[in-house]
Amino acid sequence: MTDPADLPATEAARRIAAGSLSPAALAEACLARIAAREATVRAFVTLEPERVRQDATSPALRPGPLHGLPLGVKDVLDTAEQPAEYGSPIWAGHRPRADAAAVALARAAGAVVMGKTVTTEFATRQPGPTTNPHDPARTPGGSSQGSAAGVAAGFFPLAFGTQTAGSILRPAAYCGVTGFKPGFGLIHRAGMKVMSESLDTIGVFGRGVADCALFAGALTGLDFSALPEGAPRIAFCPGPAEDRLSPDTLALLERVAAALARAGARVESFTLPPALRAADAAHALVMNGESAQALAWERMAARGQISATLNERLDWAESHPATALQEARAAFATARATFASAMSGFDLLLTASAPGEAPPGLSSTGEPVCNALWTALHGPCISLPAGTGAAGMPLGVQLVAPQGKDAALLGWARWVEKLL
Amino acid sequence: MTDPADLPATEAARRIAAGSLSPAALAEACLARIAAREATVRAFVTLEPERVRQDATSPALRPGPLHGLPLGVKDVLDTAEQPAEYGSPIWAGHRPRADAAAVALARAAGAVVMGKTVTTEFATRQPGPTTNPHDPARTPGGSSQGSAAGVAAGFFPLAFGTQTAGSILRPAAYCGVTGFKPGFGLIHRAGMKVMSESLDTIGVFGRGVADCALFAGALTGLDFSALPEGAPRIAFCPGPAEDRLSPDTLALLERVAAALARAGARVESFTLPPALRAADAAHALVMNGESAQALAWERMAARGQISATLNERLDWAESHPATALQEARAAFATARATFASAMSGFDLLLTASAPGEAPPGLSSTGEPVCNALWTALHGPCISLPAGTGAAGMPLGVQLVAPQGKDAALLGWARWVEKLL
Repeated sequence: MTDPADLPATEAARRIAAGSLSPAALAEACLARIAAREATVRAFVTLEPERVRQDATSPALRPGPLHGLPLGVKDVLDTAEQPAEYGSPIWAGHRPRADAAAVALARAAGAVVMGKTVTTEFATRQPGPTTNPHDPARTPGGSSQGSAAGVAAGFFPLAFGTQTAGSILRPAAYCGVTGFKPGFGLIHRAGMKVMSESLDTIGVFGRGVADCALFAGALTGLDFSALPEGAPRIAFCPGPAEDRLSPDTLALLERVAAALARAGARVESFTLPPALRAADAAHALVMNGESAQALAWERMAARGQISATLNERLDWAESHPATALQEARAAFATARATFASAMSGFDLLLTASAPGEAPPGLSSTGEPVCNALWTALHGPCISLPAGTGAAGMPLGVQLVAPQGKDAALLGWARWVEKLL
Repeated sequence: MTDPADLPATEAARRIAAGSLSPAALAEACLARIAAREATVRAFVTLEPERVRQDATSPALRPGPLHGLPLGVKDVLDTAEQPAEYGSPIWAGHRPRADAAAVALARAAGAVVMGKTVTTEFATRQPGPTTNPHDPARTPGGSSQGSAAGVAAGFFPLAFGTQTAGSILRPAAYCGVTGFKPGFGLIHRAGMKVMSESLDTIGVFGRGVADCALFAGALTGLDFSALPEGAPRIAFCPGPAEDRLSPDTLALLERVAAALARAGARVESFTLPPALRAADAAHALVMNGESAQALAWERMAARGQISATLNERLDWAESHPATALQEARAAFATARATFASAMSGFDLLLTASAPGEAPPGLSSTGEPVCNALWTALHGPCISLPAGTGAAGMPLGVQLVAPQGKDAALLGWARWVEKLL
């Protein structure tokens, strides 16, 4: 019998609804797993087992679609009951008054907050202590480190992540879980430590597409449960970082594309239009330029407590004229229109989630080169676990659609998931 | 000789740069005006004269483009040194750790924060105590009440506002000052109490177009000082609320259009395309639907401390299916493309800033019916003082351009301003 700590959220929800599993028993199973593995995984910034027990047994626990489901909250989203430190010593001990909107909506749907999970510094590059649950000598990816690792380790079936470049999709792939970045703007960012206004998107981790659909549906009120008819038309594209993909990732993409074609999908090669290559090139300036604005107070009041690597990137962005940021945003707008039009004959685009397996070491979280472009395009993206690589670590594939196609992408992702 | 408290920001900056006015003397002049009039105007939530004196004489005061200029900060933007209450008892006494990004950028440019200014409840409808400096029995408009009134009363030459529907443009018109809502996304919202992610825009008040250009330029690093050559091509449009405009406002618009034509502008009547009417109709659902998400924590934790009028509006939004919010946002996207294309032969659109003079009474801040559409279109909008109405209160005219045309609009606004 499966340990409840390893159940997909959808299965746990079914058992809770049927009365064969209680929120308290599920929370205890997760707490037991945390007690066993957290010393190695280090997914949490704040963990208060007694508060979890209290919440899971509270009569105030809401009977919504997430009733009794344990939830990890990335520490760039505020909660009223825990510190919010955003991965930075500048914010050490900071106590918000309120839950972030997304957290409040999750609680309103019945979720039980397990604790705050490790983020890299302000969701950028400088890693926290989290290790990959499949190999503690490797990174779990970033920036949503603790959330991805915690779902993989059995600490909670659902977690919040955020993505500016590749901060949900990459750790999902590295940790062997499902990561969904909805279309830009679908989940309200009130109470989030926003860095790039044009890019930052709140998303979710789960143990399968249905988990992500359940969670994102509960947050937005949208119906993400529909399964499509027939087989999808797939644009196959190694992506802007094709020459950086490992051999096992390239082989995986070819294998998956072939399997989907055998199952009836129409798979066509998709060449990146120049407008998309331009958006990919513009991403770093928008991300770092807007992040420099976001951190204007920190940069004035406590520059020395910002990592050298982050200060360098923000300095680099600020060395450009302000018009360059405007032009970079305009390149995004052009690319979004180009992508919507180029995808008119397709249901989804199949590409890499990450260059390869999670790299060894904890000093880097890997590179978001497979994700930044698609984040800039504002459409939904999802990473599905897809076997293992040369070192036995998880690999993932990424599915992408233009903005507004969240429900359709989640539907087709379930079709793809069954074949992986 | 003009009291320094009444100087436009640009003139005060010139005198400070020339050494004929010191930041300390300017701050004292403003503090004296505040001492004389604040009991009636009630623009401030938090005012600490000793802190102002300290900041204005501090060697840390930055020699930037706003060096020594007093600044009012609407109380939906955090400052590290004052409470941030967002116009709601739910947030009474809340102390943020940091300045909002926009406030930090203003300080980096040399501004002196005079205090936090009154906002309506969460920048929505329920008014604060601020009165109109031209008639204390009339509203100053809202939601940026204290900022608009304070610029008009001589409390500070510059102030921050925010706009979701008409919260900068309308109070600017009612108080006889200049209010500029830049294009969406131009000023970073980190540290703002954001309500509608798709609409909320930080903007500025000043004593003339040049003041707004100076301030917005300092915040963004963009050059807003250029004056255009020749005369503009003007789309003349009473706007979506044509049938609600007072006779003196309609007469004002005609008079201004004629004066601009006499000065060489090509003025053509502009009929609202159906896509723009649809966006105007969609505005209430996007604003209130996203605000309901933003206030998810407040609605769960402290619903009874939200005004009945706001709860009603949010309940109304939540009574719609989630797909209706998606469709309303899609209507905005369509309208933005339509507007950009419809304006291709024009430099600016001339329309009403408000239905008429500031209405009597303090229980309502007036209606944003002249502004909501243009906010949804994401382009820059500016309200210029333009004479007085039947009751002797200020009137304004609004100039609008499509997204990305901030610099051009500010340039043409100076051309228009000279003729008013």
